[in-house]
Formats: sequence, C-alpha cells, structure tokens
Amino acid sequence: MTTGRLRIALDAMGGDHGPGVVIPGAALTLERHPEVTFLMFGDEALCRPLLEAHPGLKAATELRGCDVFIAMDEKPSQALRRGRGKSSMWLALQAVKDGEAEVAVSAGNTGALMAMSMFCLRTMAGINRPAIAAIWPTLRGESIVLDVGATIGADARHLVNMALMGSAMAGILFDIEKPTVGLLNIGSEDVKGLDEIKLAGAILRENAFSGLEYSGFVEGDDIGQGTVDVVVTEGFTGNIALKTAEGTAKQIASYLKQAMASSFMSKIGYLFARSAFTALKDRMDPRKVNGGVFLGLDGVVIKSHGGTDPTGYASAIDIGYDMVKYDLLDRIRHAVGHEIKMADAAPPNDETDGTTEGTPS
Amino acid sequence: MTTGRLRIALDAMGGDHGPGVVIPGAALTLERHPEVTFLMFGDEALCRPLLEAHPGLKAATELRGCDVFIAMDEKPSQALRRGRGKSSMWLALQAVKDGEAEVAVSAGNTGALMAMSMFCLRTMAGINRPAIAAIWPTLRGESIVLDVGATIGADARHLVNMALMGSAMAGILFDIEKPTVGLLNIGSEDVKGLDEIKLAGAILRENAFSGLEYSGFVEGDDIGQGTVDVVVTEGFTGNIALKTAEGTAKQIASYLKQAMASSFMSKIGYLFARSAFTALKDRMDPRKVNGGVFLGLDGVVIKSHGGTDPTGYASAIDIGYDMVKYDLLDRIRHAVGHEIKMADAAPPNDETDGTTEGTPS
Repeated sequence: MTTGRLRIALDAMGGDHGPGVVIPGAALTLERHPEVTFLMFGDEALCRPLLEAHPGLKAATELRGCDVFIAMDEKPSQALRRGRGKSSMWLALQAVKDGEAEVAVSAGNTGALMAMSMFCLRTMAGINRPAIAAIWPTLRGESIVLDVGATIGADARHLVNMALMGSAMAGILFDIEKPTVGLLNIGSEDVKGLDEIKLAGAILRENAFSGLEYSGFVEGDDIGQGTVDVVVTEGFTGNIALKTAEGTAKQIASYLKQAMASSFMSKIGYLFARSAFTALKDRMDPRKVNGGVFLGLDGVVIKSHGGTDPTGYASAIDIGYDMVKYDLLDRIRHAVGHEIKMADAAPPNDETDGTTEGTPS
Repeated sequence: MTTGRLRIALDAMGGDHGPGVVIPGAALTLERHPEVTFLMFGDEALCRPLLEAHPGLKAATELRGCDVFIAMDEKPSQALRRGRGKSSMWLALQAVKDGEAEVAVSAGNTGALMAMSMFCLRTMAGINRPAIAAIWPTLRGESIVLDVGATIGADARHLVNMALMGSAMAGILFDIEKPTVGLLNIGSEDVKGLDEIKLAGAILRENAFSGLEYSGFVEGDDIGQGTVDVVVTEGFTGNIALKTAEGTAKQIASYLKQAMASSFMSKIGYLFARSAFTALKDRMDPRKVNGGVFLGLDGVVIKSHGGTDPTGYASAIDIGYDMVKYDLLDRIRHAVGHEIKMADAAPPNDETDGTTEGTPS
C-alpha cells in the first residue's frame, strides 16, 4: 500500500460537460479522501469560478490553464497532432509521466485518450499492447472485463498478459488474493474457438500463476452471472459485448417503464413498490461502476464516461485512487515479470493470426 | 409465394426433451397451418404413443423410425462420423436434400446440426460459408442478427453475402421490401474498425442492392434499440453478443424478482401490477423468437433452442414455414446473383485477414 502523497491529475475539459462535472466530482472524491490533492488542466476562465464554489477543493487543487481541448468526436490521430504537448488531456498524462501526479483521469474521447496515453506514457516493460478494463455489475457483485476496446485482435501472449493485468486490478478492487479468470469463448468445452484463445488457455492452465486462478472458457452469458472475477477477450468483441449489455439493460428498463404505466392497477402497484424500484434503479445505475482502467501503460489512467454526472465522475476518480493506493503498477510488473520467464520457456505461437475460418469443430 | 404442398421434416430426437416437446409443438403449428404435413424421424417406440395423443397431427405425419440419435453434448465431428446417413438429425436434412420435405427443423446440438447441414445440403452457389441468423427482440419490434456462431471470422465478401441473406430473411419475416442493414462495429464513424468491415461497408454503400438499404456501422447498443432490421457480424462476435444479451436479460429479471420480494410494500405492489409483470415477462419470453435460421445452404434448416417447450418449438417450425412459403432460397439466389456480378466488377480485397492490430485510428 502506498502511504505518501497522492496527487490526481484531472483533464477538466474532457467529457460532455467539462469542468461543470469534473469540479463537483472532484469535490465529492475529496470528501471521501481528504488527503488527496489535484492538479487540474483546463480553461482558467471556466474553471476558476467553479473552484470558488468549492473552497475545500480549491485549497487542494493546483489549476493550470491551457487553451487546447480535445473534442469528443475528434479522430485520435487528429487529436494527437493538434493536442500533443498542450491540450488539457495531454497535460494530465504528462503530469503522470513527469511524476507530478500518480494517476490521470479524463472523461474525454476514449480513442484520443488511449492514443495520447500510448504516446506519452508508453507501455510497461513486458507488455506490447494496452487494454481497457471495465467494471461490470453481475449477479454476484462485480467483475472486470477486458479489453473493451483499446485494440483489435489479440494473440495468446496478449490474452495471457490481460489475464495477469486484470487479476492485479481485481485483486485491488475486490480485495481478493487469487481472482478467478475466464477466457471469453463461444463454447465452454476446450475444443471450441480460436487458436489463440486455446493457446492462451493452455498457458494459463499449465503455469500456476500465483495471482490468479484460471477457470477455463466462459461464454457471453457468464459475464452477467459473475461466473468469474475477470473475463478476458480481445478489444473488438469486448466492446461489442459491453455495448450490447448496455443496450439490453436500457431496453428492459424501457419495457419495465411501459409495463408499469400500462394500466391504473399497475400504476398503483408501482406506487406501493416504489422503494423497490428505486433500489432496482440504483442497482442498475451505470454511474456506480463508472471508470475504465487503462492497463499495460507505464502509468495509471482512468477513463470516465463522457456523459456522466459528478457522482459518476467521482466514482472514476475513486477507482484511480484505489489503483494507486494499492499499487496496481507494481502488482502488474510483478505478475508480468513471472509471465516473461514463462514465455521464454514456452514462446507464443506466432502462427495464430486471429482468423480461424471454418465451422466450429 | 409457394402455393403447393408444404412438408416439414422434423428431427424428433433433438433437444433436451426430444419427442415430448417436438410432437406437441408440431401439433400447435398444425393448428395454425392446417395444410402442412410432417415427415418425422425418431425412435418409433417413443414417438408412436405421443402421436396417438394428437390424432390430427398423426394423420398429417409420416413417422420413420431410426435408432441413432445425436447427443446434445456430442462433438460435431463425432456426430458426423456416427450419425451420417442414419441419425434422426441427418435423415431430416436428407429429406430436404431429396426433395421429400421443404424445410428441416431440429432442436439438437447446434454444432452437429450445422456440420451435418454443410455435408448434406452444401452451400448455395455463390456462397462459401453458412451463417446462423437469430431473431432479436428490440424496442422497435424485432431485428435479425447474423452470424451468431456458424463460423468464426469473416472476410468482406462473406459480410456482404450475410447482408444480402439477412435482408432476404428480414423481407419475409417483417414483410418489408428494403430492410435496413448495419455492420456491427466498435464505432459509428466510418474510420473505425477492422479492414474487412470497412471494405464490406464500402461495397454495400457503392452498390445499390435492390433488396436492402445500407445504414452504415452500428454498435452493440444499437441491436436492442432496433436501429436497423438486420445486423451483420462474424460468428464469434455475434455469438458473444447474443449470449451476453441473454445473460443481461436474466440478470435484470433476477434483480427485479429480488426487488419485488424485498419488502411487504413491494409485494403488495407486485400484486397490483401483476398483469403488467405478466405482460413484461411475455415480452421478454425467449420462446416467442425461438428459431435460428441457417442461411447460405441449399435448403432451409431451422434450429430450435434445445431447452424450449412446445410453444417455443412451434415458433421455430412456424419460422421454417414462413421461410418456405415466401421463397427464402429464391430470394437469396436472386440477391446473391446480383452480388456475384458486382463481385466480378470489384473483386474483394484478399489482403484483409481479420486481424488489424494496433489502436483504433
């Protein structure tokens, strides 16, 4: 556990609402963690008056003005060209790189944030590619799903690295020693699926990694059931799974609303059950699990949803706080160090290229 | 529209409950479509007494006994070796091949049914690979999602063929002339995603196919919103998306149940709103959209969920009925014929291999 100073770099201009959400969000985090300080990058004329409204936060914050801001719909390549070295997003990352802050939080454009994180912080030794880990509410509590969209495709080595990184994160978040890990596949029998997933499964099974318990293949419906603590998949599928689940949740919420408004009796029923519905809504509240963690970089970066409110933004900062406080990077370095030794003994199969054609066998 | 005879081949032994579900299911379909006849393959000793209990069905059914049955957990390769030419599953497909029936329905093991369908019926001219199309309930009604697991990976040509086949199916099922089609991707801007998806998008945009309206890329959350009539993706991602949505629906149903049982007041509320809950349950009833359609084969094959009941099984047969009645195969041949001409003019790019590594650009 890190005990010293904990300074959080904030991209005040990221997200749909910019400092209007970032500043009250940071104030909420400060109430829960009064020892943290903030290094904030943004438009001074916008941020200053908002900080005045939160005197406690103002005292704990160093605001640095800048005047380049990345738009939510800007292409990553363009954002990098235009914003490198001077945008609020880049400066928050640069603060982590320079050791001025321990973690950077942004609600900005995911692609731009990942591209800048890669350029500014680089990947950690032993890791070739980053991953975005999402916290997924399940019937058993929460699980971690990665990669939800940092990169497309994954060879066996990247899948194994994601298992190790996701376990390190789960160890902190759920306070468990050996999180269970599953590889997302289209059948639970060992015979199915892509070659690189099978190979990653073999590596995870044969090497008794100290920081995780490998549970084998899991299918799409296992995610919501909370069958394992960490679900590993490549970024395209992970992103589709995440958004499909979000879409399904919205769809059912809409059905439920329609059903409750459908008759006089159902409206009365709704009144009686109102507190149960509130509890249900709370349970499905996406703000509670807001915060994607960028893994595999030489620094901790948290991506908040762009459309969240101060409560949601504070959740994202809190996740960053936990990741630093409980030494995410050291845990990953330790886990991946072991993996590197393993990889020397059993080099990854370069022949798997991610497109096994043909019917499932 | 096909007007003549319509005979349906049934694998009476497929599914978790075999003839105990298949026979009462077929009886339900017969009530709705009294002109159909059935050719049923299964264990005579099991099927005969069940048919006796449904005299109308018995009169419309020719039962052919056999004694090889494919297990639900049998590997496709083993099922093919053991069951080729003699299992109830194979014989139902063979009946379609031989022109004895117009469609085959099975609730058996999906992998085995697909492998046997490929061997027995072969793919249609102009189509290299089959696809499984699922009917997905949405906020706007229903959409078709394919491929949900026939094969892994897809080049641009297969994606375009799936768009054409899915549109032909949607045209029948939703009775519309130009179904809207989206390619599932991880960003709605044209710049994102895999090369083969971009290429398929370009082909669909540049060629004004008469049977569909191309709507561009869609994301995971668009599926449940019903943004387009047909969602096209390769089989691995499609299967993960389908199962993730099923898992999420189960998860929320479970949350809702817990919420309604959480207090005395919520229980009273539940009683008042009971009919609304029944309507909600009905809306989320997976039996109503039971029936995956195998597309791209030289014959119509319907896969029912293995665990369904007679109502669900009858839905699957009904889908098969519609597909034959409204000439699915001719529509696909017509659409793909145009596509072949198009492909001669603009050959698919063979260099795209499905694994574009790196961060999204």
